[in-house]
Amino acid sequence: MATEEQLIDRIQRRFSGPSTGLRVGIGDDAAVMTPQKGTEWVVTTDAFLENVHFLRKVHPAKALGYKALARATSDIAAMGARPRYFLLALALPANCAGTWLDGFLDGLAAAARRFGLSLIGGDTTKYPSIVVNLTVIGETRRGRAVLRSGARPGDVICVSGRLGEAELGLRLVQRGLHKDRRWKQLVGKHFSPEPRLALGQWLADRRCASAMIDTSDGLSTDLGHICKASGVGAKIFAGKIPMVKVPPEVQRMGMDPLQLAIDGGEDYELSFTVPKGMAGRLPPRVGGVPVTAIGEITPGEGVVLVDARGRAKPLRPGGWEPFRRHRAHRGKLKALLD
Amino acid sequence: MATEEQLIDRIQRRFSGPSTGLRVGIGDDAAVMTPQKGTEWVVTTDAFLENVHFLRKVHPAKALGYKALARATSDIAAMGARPRYFLLALALPANCAGTWLDGFLDGLAAAARRFGLSLIGGDTTKYPSIVVNLTVIGETRRGRAVLRSGARPGDVICVSGRLGEAELGLRLVQRGLHKDRRWKQLVGKHFSPEPRLALGQWLADRRCASAMIDTSDGLSTDLGHICKASGVGAKIFAGKIPMVKVPPEVQRMGMDPLQLAIDGGEDYELSFTVPKGMAGRLPPRVGGVPVTAIGEITPGEGVVLVDARGRAKPLRPGGWEPFRRHRAHRGKLKALLD
Repeated sequence: MATEEQLIDRIQRRFSGPSTGLRVGIGDDAAVMTPQKGTEWVVTTDAFLENVHFLRKVHPAKALGYKALARATSDIAAMGARPRYFLLALALPANCAGTWLDGFLDGLAAAARRFGLSLIGGDTTKYPSIVVNLTVIGETRRGRAVLRSGARPGDVICVSGRLGEAELGLRLVQRGLHKDRRWKQLVGKHFSPEPRLALGQWLADRRCASAMIDTSDGLSTDLGHICKASGVGAKIFAGKIPMVKVPPEVQRMGMDPLQLAIDGGEDYELSFTVPKGMAGRLPPRVGGVPVTAIGEITPGEGVVLVDARGRAKPLRPGGWEPFRRHRAHRGKLKALLD
Repeated sequence: MATEEQLIDRIQRRFSGPSTGLRVGIGDDAAVMTPQKGTEWVVTTDAFLENVHFLRKVHPAKALGYKALARATSDIAAMGARPRYFLLALALPANCAGTWLDGFLDGLAAAARRFGLSLIGGDTTKYPSIVVNLTVIGETRRGRAVLRSGARPGDVICVSGRLGEAELGLRLVQRGLHKDRRWKQLVGKHFSPEPRLALGQWLADRRCASAMIDTSDGLSTDLGHICKASGVGAKIFAGKIPMVKVPPEVQRMGMDPLQLAIDGGEDYELSFTVPKGMAGRLPPRVGGVPVTAIGEITPGEGVVLVDARGRAKPLRPGGWEPFRRHRAHRGKLKALLD
């Protein structure tokens, strides 16, 4: 069994390399960073817990390493910031400190390279289950971070990518169908989501978005957060929402594309609002990711969904909610183990 | 059962109040901070886990809230920095979201006020055990952070406070003696350690310390970290170490003050080195905390302990080591539950 020091050395070796503005990285009591002139720092922390967010027997270690960092970095994308540094607090069973950890670090290092992140600190502990906590620090030009609170009536509501793909993947995993060749492509987003960094920065750099959030908990929940923070309402059109493509055989298992797209979490797409006058400037794709207008911000409060026949009905938050008993759909993950 | 949003509101209300340099706090995807001119940021992350670091049945929730933040902030003290912001990732069982959480937040808020910290973000999840992860951000004047790597041969080695007090408290807790009136005073440091912020800043402001670390893992381990990082050795004198006072009845239970002082963790005192020419300027107390010279930095490597008779012997790291099997003394905490 490795000592903590050997473990830290092993982790450190995977994330070496110089990093601008970093005076002291791993190996001291704390990291020391020198801010660049005219910048602001953006910081977020994210827990990724065995049997809540993932299952050791189902999710390969490498995919978990990638996803852990992608999830946390998505919050940096949602501010329109550039990822810079991260800290890893990792608690794990002794029998995971070998091969499992190697795989996890492979995925984590691949994500860090891709997102432009340097590991600058952390904490390791022995624990009966795997507990990952990531803190990610990003940078923006002063005053350019895009908040949830800036949406105004008349603004156009947009989303990136296709919604519901991660939820579909999760449900196939829950049914043990993720190893089935026919559906293998459908589970990719659940295993390897991608933070929309290029799009977030594009919007922030051009001051194009009035409000932004990532769809980590599901559109119905996350759009509600923008509305509450901005003191506005929203109207979205079912027919405009870019939805996950669900083969008929899978739809017959009870997987409805609209419901997946509206309430499904973990897509890590961006949902943002654009002042009406600027909406025309928005290209159909940014950095290869499609951008779709799905509705508009309204005065008042609450989110309304307009169906194909033009009927409007209130859309209640139906996404991921760790402390709600009646709808903890990710609770089913745990059921797989029992 | 509360929703996550209600829970976040409850947490947020406990930590309200303006904070310099904070553009966006809790409630967005990430917090946004504006660095002050001429400063550097110092950041650390720390896991605090049920059944590893504490027991729900033994440790009162309020004490845990205080200790969780004190532990993490001690790393900021060890850099000589001023605490500014923190993020709380909290996973807990549904039955802890009521009274237990109120107590925990009481302690956390008391610590935050005392240390000058504003809560700027976090994450909450339902989980079978209590998992706390704190990220603390501090500020120093540019170039003033005190690292582990600056010790030079001839430097005087100093420590704050008395060593071994927290370990004595832990051992009394392990024996169920912490409720005994006679020993109640002896367990205080285990329940409520105090990061040495005033001393750390005093040393950094005067460029008085060449290297510094907090004694979170025990002197034998932590002084070893300074030596390794600085490429030097150390000689300390048993007779000079400020030791926990252990009543004879408790000593007879097998608790040796020297061993507690050398290998006992969680004191969160500062261990630092001072260039010989500056050692005379060091007052006996800083901010009410005693400072004691216990030895000196030597060329070469390794830490040597000189006993009362002048005999020198190598001092091996014997402190807290989560991944070492043969000496996981905090593992005993768990045994209390079984």
